[in-house]
Amino acid sequence: MKATVLIRPKDGILDPQGEAVGEALQHLGFAVSSARVGRLVDVQLDTDDAAEARMALDRMSNELLANPLIESFTIEVEAAHE
Amino acid sequence: MKATVLIRPKDGILDPQGEAVGEALQHLGFAVSSARVGRLVDVQLDTDDAAEARMALDRMSNELLANPLIESFTIEVEAAHE
Repeated sequence: MKATVLIRPKDGILDPQGEAVGEALQHLGFAVSSARVGRLVDVQLDTDDAAEARMALDRMSNELLANPLIESFTIEVEAAHE
Repeated sequence: MKATVLIRPKDGILDPQGEAVGEALQHLGFAVSSARVGRLVDVQLDTDDAAEARMALDRMSNELLANPLIESFTIEVEAAHE
């Protein structure tokens, strides 16, 4: 099954890339007050069990995909087609 | 209003970062067949009009946030609290 992990800098953590993007958007004339940049990882898992997938993704995120000290993550598991 | 742009490498476009992540996850013992890595940008817009926000985000994505040649993007506008 497919799943996506969304990884964002935590509130209060400096995000120079996001600041640069926000300023660039303002320069282009967009009415934007701020921007924050994060990552996403689409994962194809071998399991079809959503609960099992969530547990594995939580461990993956803590161990490899995100840095829990400075980043938060959310897990989106694709609805099963059953 | 807040919105998020999700940016992913298009199908068929090489994603060395995703391959490295997928291999690292397999090394850690996770039952993962593949991974793709993308970006996300959280944007705080001055407008409260969802349709206007979507139009602006579409232009931002094509002009600055994504590279439409090799990346696809999806726009998620936060539901208005009305």
